[in-house]
Amino acid sequence: MLGRKLVERLTRDAILGGEGISHVLLADVVASTAPAAPSFEVESAVADLAEGGVARELLSGLPDVIFHLAAVVSGEAEADFEKGYRSNLDGTRLLLDAVRLAGTGYRPRLVFTSSIAVFGPPYPQAIGDHHGTTPLTSYGTQKAIAELLLSDYTRRGFVDGVGIRLPTICVRPGEPNLAASSFFSSIIREPLNGREAVLPVPDDIQHWFASPRAAVDFLVRAAELEGDALGNHRCITMPGVSATVAEQIEALRQVGGERAVRLIRREPDEQTMRIVRTWPGRFAAERADALGFRAERSFDEIVRVYVEDELGGQIGAAGGDPSRSR
Amino acid sequence: MLGRKLVERLTRDAILGGEGISHVLLADVVASTAPAAPSFEVESAVADLAEGGVARELLSGLPDVIFHLAAVVSGEAEADFEKGYRSNLDGTRLLLDAVRLAGTGYRPRLVFTSSIAVFGPPYPQAIGDHHGTTPLTSYGTQKAIAELLLSDYTRRGFVDGVGIRLPTICVRPGEPNLAASSFFSSIIREPLNGREAVLPVPDDIQHWFASPRAAVDFLVRAAELEGDALGNHRCITMPGVSATVAEQIEALRQVGGERAVRLIRREPDEQTMRIVRTWPGRFAAERADALGFRAERSFDEIVRVYVEDELGGQIGAAGGDPSRSR
Repeated sequence: MLGRKLVERLTRDAILGGEGISHVLLADVVASTAPAAPSFEVESAVADLAEGGVARELLSGLPDVIFHLAAVVSGEAEADFEKGYRSNLDGTRLLLDAVRLAGTGYRPRLVFTSSIAVFGPPYPQAIGDHHGTTPLTSYGTQKAIAELLLSDYTRRGFVDGVGIRLPTICVRPGEPNLAASSFFSSIIREPLNGREAVLPVPDDIQHWFASPRAAVDFLVRAAELEGDALGNHRCITMPGVSATVAEQIEALRQVGGERAVRLIRREPDEQTMRIVRTWPGRFAAERADALGFRAERSFDEIVRVYVEDELGGQIGAAGGDPSRSR
Repeated sequence: MLGRKLVERLTRDAILGGEGISHVLLADVVASTAPAAPSFEVESAVADLAEGGVARELLSGLPDVIFHLAAVVSGEAEADFEKGYRSNLDGTRLLLDAVRLAGTGYRPRLVFTSSIAVFGPPYPQAIGDHHGTTPLTSYGTQKAIAELLLSDYTRRGFVDGVGIRLPTICVRPGEPNLAASSFFSSIIREPLNGREAVLPVPDDIQHWFASPRAAVDFLVRAAELEGDALGNHRCITMPGVSATVAEQIEALRQVGGERAVRLIRREPDEQTMRIVRTWPGRFAAERADALGFRAERSFDEIVRVYVEDELGGQIGAAGGDPSRSR
């Protein structure tokens, strides 16, 4: 999802870091969809970074900028221990080593998407930039390890890495999925499309969000910023909006009215609650702020971004404030 | 050095965690010296954990406790990038995987020696237990990654890991070596043995120390403690003594007198200073304290431990307070 939106954005901008984009290589384990009418050359590769030699081949054009958005998601990395480590740790390390060995003087900007899953309780009221990474999932562990590698390979001069810890992206377009975090998007997206959504946790759960549009902004900013400004700590917690489920619902009410809110069905789920209770709720993302990363200011704004970017600014037939739609 | 002292301690105690020790396997890339007159069976192996299959073979006896004190030290891991990653990262991961795959229900206590090298500036006045690991060396990076693996493998139920972040061990017996930290021991050890020592940094440099005897205590405590008390964060900063070089010298004066202090030759070295300035000076090791880990209380005590354990309680001919030795 994020990769697709990033390519759309690059297609629209046609420049990155003040330079025209001449060539883009899209690599994924499944076939990538090429953007419509790009002003640059687009190549696609179906490739698995965790296979020996693949990264070297992908880098043969010595790209100036690499976006590494991999790979196996949280739930899957927990369910399949070996697959997660192979893909998220070995794949990333092989990519870094391929960059290191690609040739004298080659030092591309590598933007790596980390995650707030690198953190684990106990939390302070707002998690600061120097808080330790003590993940409670194998996915979070793999991301935290990749962060350490990125900083060390950068310090050694092999790559020019920037790691960005993404908030939970909300509102995700598309269908609900099996991720434990899926409901954070579903309870907004589904009602605004006239469909029911299940809420498995209490209203006081607090979490850290940014829109897909903000996430793409982060990626572009991470590609463009002056690396020296980061010093030796190349991984940064991204800004976001701290909101409780109750505040999410209130934002839904503002846009979709009571009828939308009534489409949320409360169905407490012990297992989801146990996972979600360990997630962070608020950050003090001061480094990111100083480096010019910007997210939404409120959850209302996050919902508006969804309506603008995914619904063409219009709420579906079943949504909307009933007092206005009747 | 630490491995040898640990084996001496185990030989003396003959028990660990309330149970008699029946068998010890010493594995190193060089030949190990067997302890004198142990009450248990001792086997030695010259083996490289980073080679495939080696860890599995070493674990064939399914030991209840594994001490992993590896491996390539700071200076070497910085000088030889690939060797450091191979030994400190791949070796540790292969060991963890061999434990994971060794058989149903096998879940040994694995004591891993990490290091305060996992930290990097900026530091608060005292580094707390939740401070982030942002190492400034490849060695520190490899240790921080091993910590993450240890916690995740433990959380998944594959091993019962305890990682202990050792302070700089002081006073190291033996000869000065090429490590940047070598002088911290040399400026005490050499004068107490009637030899000159070089001090490459200013007197206000502050650092975090524990004696070799305390470090062995940490290892034994880490093997014996109740794993559940650690929760999901299995790596702990060890207690120590925060001392400036000036305080070190004052402690030397107490024991060795003015004559010993005069054997310290100040020879500022820019490169050493640049490295040492990035090292942490003080920790608030509250978790370790609550878990019963104990270090010395003062640098005076650290010097006394050296005199007791390495000099048989006697200071060499050239040492001693001149006013008393004359």
